[in-house]
Amino acid sequence: MPNILSPNGKLTIEEIAELTRAKPRPGDPLGRRIENVAPLDSAGATDISFFDNAKYLAEFASTRAGACFVSPRFAASAPSGPVALVTAEPYRAFVAVALALFPAALRPSSLFGASEARASSAQIHSSARLEASVTIDPLAVIGPRAEIGGGTLIAAGAVIGPDVCIGRDCAIGAGVTVLHALIGDRVIIHPGVRIGQDGFGYLPGPRGHQKIPQTRRVIIQDDVEIGANTTVDRGSTRDTIIGEGSKIDNLVQIAHNVSIGRHCLIAGQTGISGSAQVGDFVVMAGKVGIADHVKIGDGAILGAQSGVMADVPAGARWLGSPAQPVRDFMKGVAALRRLARGQKPEGGGV
Amino acid sequence: MPNILSPNGKLTIEEIAELTRAKPRPGDPLGRRIENVAPLDSAGATDISFFDNAKYLAEFASTRAGACFVSPRFAASAPSGPVALVTAEPYRAFVAVALALFPAALRPSSLFGASEARASSAQIHSSARLEASVTIDPLAVIGPRAEIGGGTLIAAGAVIGPDVCIGRDCAIGAGVTVLHALIGDRVIIHPGVRIGQDGFGYLPGPRGHQKIPQTRRVIIQDDVEIGANTTVDRGSTRDTIIGEGSKIDNLVQIAHNVSIGRHCLIAGQTGISGSAQVGDFVVMAGKVGIADHVKIGDGAILGAQSGVMADVPAGARWLGSPAQPVRDFMKGVAALRRLARGQKPEGGGV
Amino acid sequence: MPNILSPNGKLTIEEIAELTRAKPRPGDPLGRRIENVAPLDSAGATDISFFDNAKYLAEFASTRAGACFVSPRFAASAPSGPVALVTAEPYRAFVAVALALFPAALRPSSLFGASEARASSAQIHSSARLEASVTIDPLAVIGPRAEIGGGTLIAAGAVIGPDVCIGRDCAIGAGVTVLHALIGDRVIIHPGVRIGQDGFGYLPGPRGHQKIPQTRRVIIQDDVEIGANTTVDRGSTRDTIIGEGSKIDNLVQIAHNVSIGRHCLIAGQTGISGSAQVGDFVVMAGKVGIADHVKIGDGAILGAQSGVMADVPAGARWLGSPAQPVRDFMKGVAALRRLARGQKPEGGGV
Repeated sequence: MPNILSPNGKLTIEEIAELTRAKPRPGDPLGRRIENVAPLDSAGATDISFFDNAKYLAEFASTRAGACFVSPRFAASAPSGPVALVTAEPYRAFVAVALALFPAALRPSSLFGASEARASSAQIHSSARLEASVTIDPLAVIGPRAEIGGGTLIAAGAVIGPDVCIGRDCAIGAGVTVLHALIGDRVIIHPGVRIGQDGFGYLPGPRGHQKIPQTRRVIIQDDVEIGANTTVDRGSTRDTIIGEGSKIDNLVQIAHNVSIGRHCLIAGQTGISGSAQVGDFVVMAGKVGIADHVKIGDGAILGAQSGVMADVPAGARWLGSPAQPVRDFMKGVAALRRLARGQKPEGGGV
Repeated sequence: MPNILSPNGKLTIEEIAELTRAKPRPGDPLGRRIENVAPLDSAGATDISFFDNAKYLAEFASTRAGACFVSPRFAASAPSGPVALVTAEPYRAFVAVALALFPAALRPSSLFGASEARASSAQIHSSARLEASVTIDPLAVIGPRAEIGGGTLIAAGAVIGPDVCIGRDCAIGAGVTVLHALIGDRVIIHPGVRIGQDGFGYLPGPRGHQKIPQTRRVIIQDDVEIGANTTVDRGSTRDTIIGEGSKIDNLVQIAHNVSIGRHCLIAGQTGISGSAQVGDFVVMAGKVGIADHVKIGDGAILGAQSGVMADVPAGARWLGSPAQPVRDFMKGVAALRRLARGQKPEGGGV
Repeated sequence: MPNILSPNGKLTIEEIAELTRAKPRPGDPLGRRIENVAPLDSAGATDISFFDNAKYLAEFASTRAGACFVSPRFAASAPSGPVALVTAEPYRAFVAVALALFPAALRPSSLFGASEARASSAQIHSSARLEASVTIDPLAVIGPRAEIGGGTLIAAGAVIGPDVCIGRDCAIGAGVTVLHALIGDRVIIHPGVRIGQDGFGYLPGPRGHQKIPQTRRVIIQDDVEIGANTTVDRGSTRDTIIGEGSKIDNLVQIAHNVSIGRHCLIAGQTGISGSAQVGDFVVMAGKVGIADHVKIGDGAILGAQSGVMADVPAGARWLGSPAQPVRDFMKGVAALRRLARGQKPEGGGV
């Protein structure tokens, strides 16, 4: 069993050339059939690969791939075995083939297949409203007055709370819980995600901490994807919002009242504290931490493990803990290494 | 649908003044009705807000709130629209109103409401002992000899293992698993929490690692709250203990044999390694890491992303990785920034 | 109720001496019965403890343990109360006794006991193939064509996806989801683990991010253990692999295409980015972050909170963010502390 996901048929080189506008090398066999995508070193005769980084030249020279996308500057070095498909953007063409071969891989599918659209073991409250083409997998629970749009899948063991609204063509993964939330269309929620529980809010006191009611919702806009076991708390005094098209990785924490803009990319194990405001097209690498009430400007890029204690301007690249502009962080790293070796500071007046 | 959680009625200004002992401005309408709490910038005519930080003066001046708590020194700057309620602690008064309006928001409620106290789809072992007023939501699983106190909710899909004892008026969230544990009264466990599984203990060897049996329990005392997807391992040779009133955020890891004192606040993504001992009223910000066997004194405060490798004295404030007193950490940050800019060390003898 | 896990009978000192080859002190009572293992300070008359670190000399002198393993150099200081069992490796002997007393504690057991090998509430697809001695706990879900080997336990609420293969004598914990995966023999997966969902892969663009199909599997080899709420994404173009005997703690993130070698130890909240390659016998302490495509050599040791941006040689010990050899990191810490105090660099030429 080489692969659990099955491709949606095969593509000839000719079809791939048409799809990607890549140019086959003269004389290459246009009828060769491609079934899958693979890296240079593990690709076989029915796989297509790509090459655009000189670091992998040895793998390129010895690849057994059936075909390979290659940028014009490397076209002359292409080995004779694979069909060479020349294109300015080899990786983009490679992804286009993956999408054509595996369209069903773009979102989780029903565990039990199309055999039973609403599993008899699922617990669906009589007041819930489901559009016609909703799929409910075994042992899911749908609470009172919940609304679920057509084309949406609720996977096995997921729990949808009272009054939750979920749009169309969403996939809510196995074991997910969704409470106090409105979810748009085409949203993908991976297994084990927790949405809409209380945030972490207390009024500290010498005899203990008074819990503060968290009375708002979580709003998840269209085309958002949320990774496995990530947690999104509901708002205390403002809704917690995840903007259209933003993609969130596994094990991320998003606290109450946080607002995340459109088309952000937030990598694994990042944590965003209460009431932080994140702009559009922001990128956070892994394990970033954002302090509460901080504002991150549009298009900012935060490096892995950054600890952001202050507002970050739009378009800035920050790194470190406490985070600072990448250039300053790197100067500090270099200066400390020189110092540790007993050298004098560069350009110093001492 | 402006809000999923509904307030428990409305409060007049007069009732709010009595509840909080705040003083309305002379002539303000005492009969105005308040339904919700909100920040200055998003509050409307039926919301109450608060103002105690000059940073938000512009929002205060233009707020459309129906009422606003304000500290005496800012009382003269209050705009004319909202009722101004003067009090020494505006935020505390604001929380008191939230508590009065939303008492039910203080703990998770049953998914299916009061319609069915013990869902017929739940799997309750015949030897489990449940007090009269326990609520069991759909598809929960209660194991052999488990005991559950009155007023406690076991939410949908939660799994309670053999011999587990849970006290009264607790809320065990959806999809939680509890094994090998004793849980006190009024404990709140949010969705996806994992309690009582094996800790991470091996005897390393050149041909592999020998797993060490973890034979003790998890003890969770009264009034503890544990955030979504947090993990608490059971003890290997001592019980893992979380002390009375301590509050733990989402995605926290608490390893085997750890002892946490009373009324601690532990923020998201913190990790506490095996056999660490944490005192009372300790505060940990997000993403703190505590090495194994370390002791944290009463009232210590650990800043975000601290990596604590050594014992921390009572009352100390530490930060950094490796963690050190905040003052020393800040001096180091400043010194490194000067060095990176090529300036000479402050006060240095060079 | 002192302990939820019950020992498998008792052991006499004579039996323990034979099991561990430790030598009792002349005259000590060989018939004394031991029921449990415990640390020096909490052990009682039926517990055995161990002592091999002078730091705990006071606890050793006053222990009430029934017996205590002790290394030869401390044998003379042994108090008279406990039986003193002299051995070169006291902790290894202690673990051997724990293993003999609690063999059942080495893997999670069925929630409902042996009373019902396949719970009637479990949802098992008609095309799934289960060997004879598989145990399925209540409300587990087994998808189409899944295969499960004899002796394996699928705990309550676990979800096993289509075509997943699980070997023999495994324990799949409560609420786990397994998709697109092959799992070997004697694998332990703790509650809430997520295996086989899509990795985090997008082709960024100015109007949004194109999701990239993730078409490969997760391969988990024999004797692997995976901690609670950890996430393991399936491969995009290569299988994600966890090698034989490797042990992974709670809340760890393992991204698509990652390859982990044999007998690694990976502590809590670590994150390993896409396509990273980890050798054999690698040790990662808590909260380590590994950048994508990085290679970690055999036997490398990475300290807590390390941020690894570059390849690490075999056998190296690295620490810090960005990570560097521990010796260099420590020099940097010391140099910065001197600088912050206004002292001149050690050995500097200034």
